[in-house]
Amino acid sequence: MTAVERLQRLFLQSLETGFSEPEWNRQPDRLYAPQRYILGMGGKRLRPVLSLMAAEALGARPEIALPAAHAVERFHNFSLIHDDIMDEAPVRRGKPTVHTQWGLNTAILSGDALLVMAYESLRSLPATVLPQALEVFNRTALEVCEGQQWDMDFEIDPEVQEGQYIQMIRYKTSVLLGCALELGVLAAGGSLTIGKALYAFGLELGTSFQIHDDILDAFGDPVLVGKQVGGDILSNKKTILWIHLSTQQPHLVNEWMNDRSAEKVEAIKTAMVQSGSLAHAEAKRKYHFDLALEALRQAQQEGCSTQDLAELAHWIFQRKA
Amino acid sequence: MTAVERLQRLFLQSLETGFSEPEWNRQPDRLYAPQRYILGMGGKRLRPVLSLMAAEALGARPEIALPAAHAVERFHNFSLIHDDIMDEAPVRRGKPTVHTQWGLNTAILSGDALLVMAYESLRSLPATVLPQALEVFNRTALEVCEGQQWDMDFEIDPEVQEGQYIQMIRYKTSVLLGCALELGVLAAGGSLTIGKALYAFGLELGTSFQIHDDILDAFGDPVLVGKQVGGDILSNKKTILWIHLSTQQPHLVNEWMNDRSAEKVEAIKTAMVQSGSLAHAEAKRKYHFDLALEALRQAQQEGCSTQDLAELAHWIFQRKA
Repeated sequence: MTAVERLQRLFLQSLETGFSEPEWNRQPDRLYAPQRYILGMGGKRLRPVLSLMAAEALGARPEIALPAAHAVERFHNFSLIHDDIMDEAPVRRGKPTVHTQWGLNTAILSGDALLVMAYESLRSLPATVLPQALEVFNRTALEVCEGQQWDMDFEIDPEVQEGQYIQMIRYKTSVLLGCALELGVLAAGGSLTIGKALYAFGLELGTSFQIHDDILDAFGDPVLVGKQVGGDILSNKKTILWIHLSTQQPHLVNEWMNDRSAEKVEAIKTAMVQSGSLAHAEAKRKYHFDLALEALRQAQQEGCSTQDLAELAHWIFQRKA
Repeated sequence: MTAVERLQRLFLQSLETGFSEPEWNRQPDRLYAPQRYILGMGGKRLRPVLSLMAAEALGARPEIALPAAHAVERFHNFSLIHDDIMDEAPVRRGKPTVHTQWGLNTAILSGDALLVMAYESLRSLPATVLPQALEVFNRTALEVCEGQQWDMDFEIDPEVQEGQYIQMIRYKTSVLLGCALELGVLAAGGSLTIGKALYAFGLELGTSFQIHDDILDAFGDPVLVGKQVGGDILSNKKTILWIHLSTQQPHLVNEWMNDRSAEKVEAIKTAMVQSGSLAHAEAKRKYHFDLALEALRQAQQEGCSTQDLAELAHWIFQRKA
């Protein structure tokens, strides 16, 4: 069993125990059922695993970081509930989204309550680190909201630069990975230097991860990814691939703008290869991955045991889905 | 100038200063403009005044409770943004609601960010009281969400009992008043006993306040209230008046159910007077007000200077709008 699997298991066990705790049995059930539903949907549990692994990397028992792990996982799922409303997404992981299942109002409200419960997890951290943990968590939470607002603004903005795009995905996705790690360090009583180094590791790994997502959406193996590829291309989503291609071949991108056919996906993918957009995205993915490993080396120099984190990073980098 | 006016002014001054702080100038502006908009709408600022007054009642400078005051005011306004979406309310205080002005998605997201900023205010409390402040705040926040869910559930529930209704308004409205006071006590380094006594004062005052709101909606002076009365009657809202009348005259209530005329308002109001529903609601309003004063006496016995709080309570009790 790898470290990732062991920590996933530890987290899932505490999640199940948590489901029988008083707070999950509060009334009215309509408010709490959607939270149990989305938290029970599965997934890699990457964020909580990062918190637990950071604590272990400092020589502490991973259990000490469980409050941090639940805080970031609850926050992540709160943001999924509300993002799915904003994106009008009907399905997540093959199941109806919360607003599809329970309606708009309960989706807004159970998301709100889940955000509060993220802070309730955080409260279980040692009192000595609570002010600092709140600072990291609040800043991250605001940035995630800002990232989502930018993402929506970009849909109607005709000219999005790559730099703006990178900043958007960092806020929307990467900062929470950094936060998960820094909270794990805080929980284990680690130094500020290690906290900042592992935050940077998470930030860069998350950026690489999100660029990877963009690439897989267009060029992944449909069997492995588990869905038809090309969704981003069909909806003209301003991914790093799209932004690059539209600077290289603006006319081509414009021609296909209002098309939603399979031919469009093939034509755009071919152009992305020929124009070097795919190679450009792959280079950026590798670049941010290397920055992540560099941050990890800094943490190691400060006495942090980084082997499991490095393994996790390589697992993330090599994923096919 | 009364104590209430003085503390309102203190809060408003710090609100204006806060507007020029870095956090309010963050980007994207679409996320923060709605927050400035709703926080600038005005109102009695009852919740922050309660926090400041609680600190003063303990002999502390009111400024020490400003983090608590901003936390409860931000939380209150976050809940207004999201409640207005759920209630499909087009107007608040004579202005377009946030979702009317900026759309659903930005209303959800700027509400989320305002909830995070409530926690960011809380973080400025002394580190020694932060864990306890978070406990009070989180519990209250969950209860407010639960109250809102109950309120929505009651719309489609044909049989709502008075006890359920009282519990709903306590969660939706009163607990935040109690929380505002208890946080003020914590900020000033007050005892647990005083904290709990002032919490109880706020809880009962809030309950009396909400029953008063129900009464004013039907029997208030339209000139003083600033709007046509009878809105709750037209929409068959299950207020304490409606619940009482429907047990006394179920046939009458049923007859008018699908009517939305001015005659309905007059007929139901007359029935509410004749059936004793109005007298019943007035008695309950007085009952919870007396419980509030009793809690205040307990706080006084513990050395708390309760004169301003008592004056505020009487001001609230005697309001005509």
